[in-house]
This record gives sequence, C-alpha cells and structure tokens, in this order.
Amino acid sequence: MENYDLIVIGAGPGGYIAAERAGHAGKKVLLIEKENLGGVCTNWGCIPTKSLLNSSKLYKKALHGEAYGVTAENVRFNLEKAMAHKQDTIETLRKGIAYLMKSNKVDVVFAEATLTSSKTVMADGKEYGFDNLFVATGSTAFVPPIPGSDLPHVLTNVGILEVESLPKNLVVIGGGVIGVEFASFFSAVGVNVSVVEMMDEIIPLMDGEFSAALRKSMSQVDFHLKAKVTKIDKTKVYFEKDGAETALDADLVLMAVGRRPLTMGLEKIGVDVAPQGIRVDEQMRTNLPGIFAIGDVNGKSLLAHSASRMGEVAVNTILGKPDRMRYDAIPWAVYTDPEAAGCGLTEAQAKDAGYKVQTATVQMRANGRFLAEQGKKEPGMCKVVVEEGSGLLLGVHMLGIYSSEIIHSAAAMMEMELRVQDIKEIVFPHPSVSEIIKDCLWAL
Amino acid sequence: MENYDLIVIGAGPGGYIAAERAGHAGKKVLLIEKENLGGVCTNWGCIPTKSLLNSSKLYKKALHGEAYGVTAENVRFNLEKAMAHKQDTIETLRKGIAYLMKSNKVDVVFAEATLTSSKTVMADGKEYGFDNLFVATGSTAFVPPIPGSDLPHVLTNVGILEVESLPKNLVVIGGGVIGVEFASFFSAVGVNVSVVEMMDEIIPLMDGEFSAALRKSMSQVDFHLKAKVTKIDKTKVYFEKDGAETALDADLVLMAVGRRPLTMGLEKIGVDVAPQGIRVDEQMRTNLPGIFAIGDVNGKSLLAHSASRMGEVAVNTILGKPDRMRYDAIPWAVYTDPEAAGCGLTEAQAKDAGYKVQTATVQMRANGRFLAEQGKKEPGMCKVVVEEGSGLLLGVHMLGIYSSEIIHSAAAMMEMELRVQDIKEIVFPHPSVSEIIKDCLWAL
Repeated sequence: MENYDLIVIGAGPGGYIAAERAGHAGKKVLLIEKENLGGVCTNWGCIPTKSLLNSSKLYKKALHGEAYGVTAENVRFNLEKAMAHKQDTIETLRKGIAYLMKSNKVDVVFAEATLTSSKTVMADGKEYGFDNLFVATGSTAFVPPIPGSDLPHVLTNVGILEVESLPKNLVVIGGGVIGVEFASFFSAVGVNVSVVEMMDEIIPLMDGEFSAALRKSMSQVDFHLKAKVTKIDKTKVYFEKDGAETALDADLVLMAVGRRPLTMGLEKIGVDVAPQGIRVDEQMRTNLPGIFAIGDVNGKSLLAHSASRMGEVAVNTILGKPDRMRYDAIPWAVYTDPEAAGCGLTEAQAKDAGYKVQTATVQMRANGRFLAEQGKKEPGMCKVVVEEGSGLLLGVHMLGIYSSEIIHSAAAMMEMELRVQDIKEIVFPHPSVSEIIKDCLWAL
Repeated sequence: MENYDLIVIGAGPGGYIAAERAGHAGKKVLLIEKENLGGVCTNWGCIPTKSLLNSSKLYKKALHGEAYGVTAENVRFNLEKAMAHKQDTIETLRKGIAYLMKSNKVDVVFAEATLTSSKTVMADGKEYGFDNLFVATGSTAFVPPIPGSDLPHVLTNVGILEVESLPKNLVVIGGGVIGVEFASFFSAVGVNVSVVEMMDEIIPLMDGEFSAALRKSMSQVDFHLKAKVTKIDKTKVYFEKDGAETALDADLVLMAVGRRPLTMGLEKIGVDVAPQGIRVDEQMRTNLPGIFAIGDVNGKSLLAHSASRMGEVAVNTILGKPDRMRYDAIPWAVYTDPEAAGCGLTEAQAKDAGYKVQTATVQMRANGRFLAEQGKKEPGMCKVVVEEGSGLLLGVHMLGIYSSEIIHSAAAMMEMELRVQDIKEIVFPHPSVSEIIKDCLWAL
C-alpha cells in the first residue's frame, strides 16, 4: 500500500489549491476526484455562470450602445455559442489545474474515494495510506421535498448549465446568490423570469439596503418575497404568500434554495459531523488526528476563495507554520447586472456585534468614470461601516460596475485593520470607480 | 479688500479638492478659475478621454461578440453621439463640483487671476487678500517649434476633443499616455493611426516589458520609435529615423509631446520657479511664506490624483496637521484597449535604486474570470517586484482588462509597506482578475 504525506479528496478550489501548496512545499500528495478537476466552482458554479453572465452583459451593451455612439441592427443572443464559449473556458481551466498538479508533483486519481479506516482511503479498487487527509468534498444543491421537485424540467445549478434552448418562462426557487445570478442571465437574454424567495429579502449576506437596491434594479425580474413554493407541475410553480396561492407559468424551474455538505458518511469512522457540515477548528482540523475538512464541506463559508484559503491554512498547519482561518475579511461578489460585492460587517451585523458605528453611502453617479461609462441612470452605490471613535473599517458594501474587482482592497484594508485616517492617505487612481471607497470615507 | 484664509487659483483636481477640504474644515476659501470647474482633467483630459474610450470599447465589443454568443449587423460608430455623451458627462461633473463648492461654503470667481503682491490677488478687477495661497494652475500642452506645428489641423488634447468628423489618417506626435490613449480611441473606430515617438519605447512610466506588450497588442496602430518629426505640412507629417526621412499621410495631427507648467510669471514676485515647475517642499510650500503650489504646476507628478493628494497635504499643513506628500505609492492607469496600470517601482527602477529584487510575471489567461470574459487570445499580464529577503512589495504592473480598477489595492499595500507573506494571507474574491496579484506572489 502506497503511503502519502497528504491525501486530498475533492479537486475543487479548496482541494486543488491545498494539493498545489503542499506539493510545492515538497510533500508527497495524492488528489482524488470523482468527476472533474476544479469541482463545482470551475465546472458548475463560479466560472460557467461568469462566462454566461458576461455574454448576457455583452448582449445588453450591443442592444443599448446608442447613447454612447454605437448602433447595431438585428442584435441577437445565440445560446449555443455562449454555451460553447462557457465550455471552452471550463476545459481550459481544467487543463490549467492538471498542469498545476503535474508541475507540483501531485498524483491525481479520478475515482470515488471511501475511507476504509482513519488512516486509509480506497479509490478505484486501490488502497492508499495517509499521514494527513483533507476532506474537500464540497457541497451539492439541496432539493427540498416539494411535490413535483423531481420532474425533469426542475433543474439545479448543474442541469441548468446544459440547457440547449432558452425557456419561455423560468421560475427560480431561492433568491440567494446562485438563484439571482441565473435570474440576471436569463432575464437579460429575453426569458421571463420569476424568483420565489421565502425570506423577506434576496441575498441574505448583503446589507439590506443593497439587496433591496439590487432587486429593484433588476426590474425585468418578477420577485416574490416571503413566498413559499408548495407544488410544481409540468407547466406551473405554485406558491403561497400571505395565505393566498399563486401559480407562475414555468417551462423551466431552477432549484436554488441552498447547499448541503457532502460528508462521505465520515461520522461512521468517528468524525464529528454537524448538520451544516464537518466540525473544524481554526486550523481546519476535525476531531480525528490528521483529518482536516476544508471548503463547503465544513459549512463555515461557502465561497470558492474561502475554500482555497482554508486549504492554505490546513497546509501551513501540517507544515508546522502557524496560521489560522479568519472569517472577518472575506470578500464576496455577485455578478449580476449590476454587480454587487462586499466585505466585512453590514451595518446591522456591526450593531448586533455591539459596535457603535458610523456609516456613509455615496452614489456612484457622482464618480467620474462611472458617469463616463454608465451614464446618470445606472444604479451604483458604496457604503462604508466604521467603528465610531477608533475609525476602524468594519465593512464595505458595493453595488455597480467593477464592484467585484474593487472589493479585494477592502479585504486587504480590513485584514490590516486600517482606520479611516490611514485610508485617506492612500492615493486612488483617477478616474476610477475604486475612488468611491475614499469618497465614502470623506463623506462620514 | 476682502481677505480669505485661503485663495486657490485653478479649479482642477488639485485646486477644487483643496478648496473642498479647507472649506469643510471651516476655512474661508476663495477659488478662482479662468475657464471651467474641473480643469484639464474634467474638461480636456481624464474624463472626456475615458468617455470616448468607453465608446470605442463598446464598438469593438459589438463588432466581435459572436464568440460569446452575441451577433449584430451593421454595427456603426457615431462620433457625434459619442461626443455628445462625453460633453454631457463633463457638464454633469462640473455641476457636481459647483455643488461641492457651495456645500463647503467655498466662494468661486470665474476670472483670470494675477498676483498683485505676495499677499494679494486680482481677479475680474477686484483685489482679494489671503493668508494662504494655493497655486493650482496646472499645465498645458507643449507645442515644440516644428515647422508646420501652427497649421490648423495640428491639434492638442483640447482641440482634438472637439473634432466633428473622424479623420482618415491621424498622426500622433508623442507616445506618452495622452498620445497612446487617443491612438487607441481613433484606431478602434476605423481611423488609420500612426504614432511617432522620439524615445525607444512608448509610455516611459511603464515597465519596459509592459509598454512593449501594450504596443504590440495595439497592432492596428503604426508605431514609429526613435523617430523625430521634422516638418508638418497640409497633408503629411515628416519624420527622420536612422538618418532616413519618411512621410506619413495626415489629415489630422495630435501634438502630445509633453506638458509645460502654467507658472503665472510668479518668479516676478520672488517665487522659486524651475523649468519643470514651481519648486515645493514635502508640504507643497514654495519659498515664499503662505504660498503653496499643487498639481501639475510643480512638475512633481502630472496625475490628477497626485494633484488631489497634494491639495490635501497642503490643506493639512495650513490646518497644522502633520502630513507630507509621498511619491512612492501613487498608482497610474492608461485606459487603452487593453488597459494598463501600475504602482511603485519597475524592475529597472528598483535595481537602479539599489534593491536586490525578485520578480514574477503571470499571464492573465491563467485567470478564470479573464478567460471567461476575454478568451485565450486577449493580452493580459501582471508582474510584481519584491525586495529579496524582506519580501517588501516594491511594484505591481498590469496589462489587461480591469487593471485600472485593481491597481488601487497595490497603492494600499505599498502605502502600508506590506510584505509577500502579509499579502498571501489576504483573501481575494474568486473569480476575479484581481486574484492575479496573489498568483504573482505565489509564483515568486
């Protein structure tokens, strides 16, 4: 039986980054993946959705370029070509990951893995021993037991990325990031889209002011909040709101109510597994020595970049380098049209945590680049949340173009625990939408 | 004679920001502007060029959307509409500045200002006294004494923003930021563009590897390096290179060889004026008490955001708050297609400064979002320059989409003197092009 310093199960952004870093550090590493390199992120999540959303944004720009001096006739959206580009992007990235594994001397086995003991893994009929195991098996779409949820036109994030023609009426069940991104894409290319959400607002991780603004700016989508889906049939989705039942036409249904961790039945070998995922400490260690759980499977932060950082923390831990996972400066982005992004605490979260806060919100239409590229009517704003007195930056929230590329600086500023006065001395390039962060701080 | 705590001459991004900050702090402020609020930046520089470049990028996207699933027929560029949008953007921003002045209780006089003594200014026939004076008069295009440079079709950045029809052949004299941005715009909308540059590479502030890559990626532009324009006539521009003379067809010529400071003849009242601008210290003070010079007029850093920061430093100085102007973490961006941006030292500059350096360059096509949105063939790369041993980040250089919105984080990291290990612990959102900075650090 071959023994590895580290076996990683699952080649998503948690698993492959961990394998790369450990391989780079000279460890003998085996990566086991049951489907494709890149996991959900590369194959059925972050990447394909961003590819499709880019296509729908290009379509919108081609349709509405006249105010900027660009006219065109017969502007059409071709789903087949958009899907082909998406597929090409995925395959190129998979090859890139394969190359990364090879160049960092990581062995890769494509098979379903099972734990045969707390020191051995079976894959493709072969048993491997390990000193350390990273469980990076991720999560899958949770499909609630709603009558009709097993009908063939009811898809999750996986199936909807393979549709061959645009539906007429799409109903999205769940107004989280996944649901709202797909709603943005399909509504932009001419599909009638409804979103049915149980909570009183979409995208719970966002500052309430911003999620409401995003919802309003997606005016082509029919949002139903505080609404509970009761039944799906071949042509309709039924929901209940305030005691009344409504039926929405649907030839395609996306189920996007949440994710459940793929915990491999590890409780059987004694791993401590909670309903939201495998329990871990700040170094991503489970209760069993040498067994770590990183990424969605521990339920701590269901974001690709959180998984990667967890992978790094776990690798540093087995290398004996002090490191720990922190959750207070993790940025997130939603690639809707308009984009949204944030990092740190919302105003409500900061108050709940006992901070005395100051906030300022600035509209992006006051920003030179935004105005030049988006005009006066496109939505866009930025809000900062700061601790009163100390001036410590607690949160940055953005809605509008480029938000997803700007927000990493907020992560850097919060990680470094910068205060308002420190940030005021940083020079931001003009004209750029990024200046809005500084403008917010001056507006406090 | 009315006396002010502060008189600011020139309402560009140096002057108006200084007036705003001082007014906000309760000072009695007068802003004197001879033309339009916003100065060169808002009216004849940063903003109008970004508006036009956005239009030309939209045109390119509408023409080449097929690979992403967007087809269109009869795609046309309408200069009149693009110019109208540009003008609308300018006017909206001017109104915004006027509102800022009003809300910060800054008096504004539109007139040419002259110094009548080291304590008084004359404008529009009226004399004003000051405790402090900020000279923020900016710069203007330098027009070298080349035969034919006074012909009516030879324009500077001001005149070219008013052209009513596209030329057939544009010759740009000077391959700096201004020249290359206009070359990018006009060549994208179908004009034959040549750039004639005396130096051996375009855009001297860029890392040599990046300026060469930008030049190559603008393959539709005919670049002539180490070439000296000798004469302009009604139909041609003549240049000499390696002893041979060449003539380029030109029905429009842009003169963009450099800028000269508008120093108001201040040497007459004893201000120390050097050829590149008014001499200032780290607090922007000239040799005369109470007289400061901020922005292009001091020749220290000809960038809008440098001018704004200088304005803040000068205001803090008169408020008695310790502050000083630093030039080592000022980002810059070039809004060509593709964009470029940078902050800190290039590899060559770092070596010249005596640093032992490590560098790493990563291609953007390895980045998920870049690949999804730009495909495999668009140019893009990022380079980091780090001090060996300490790991101190010395420079970040980027070419490719979103560079201008990402680079402010490099300014923040350099301002905070972060080291490689610090930055590796920052979480960047996935998928975003901004991740390339972290990837570069891991590639070291």
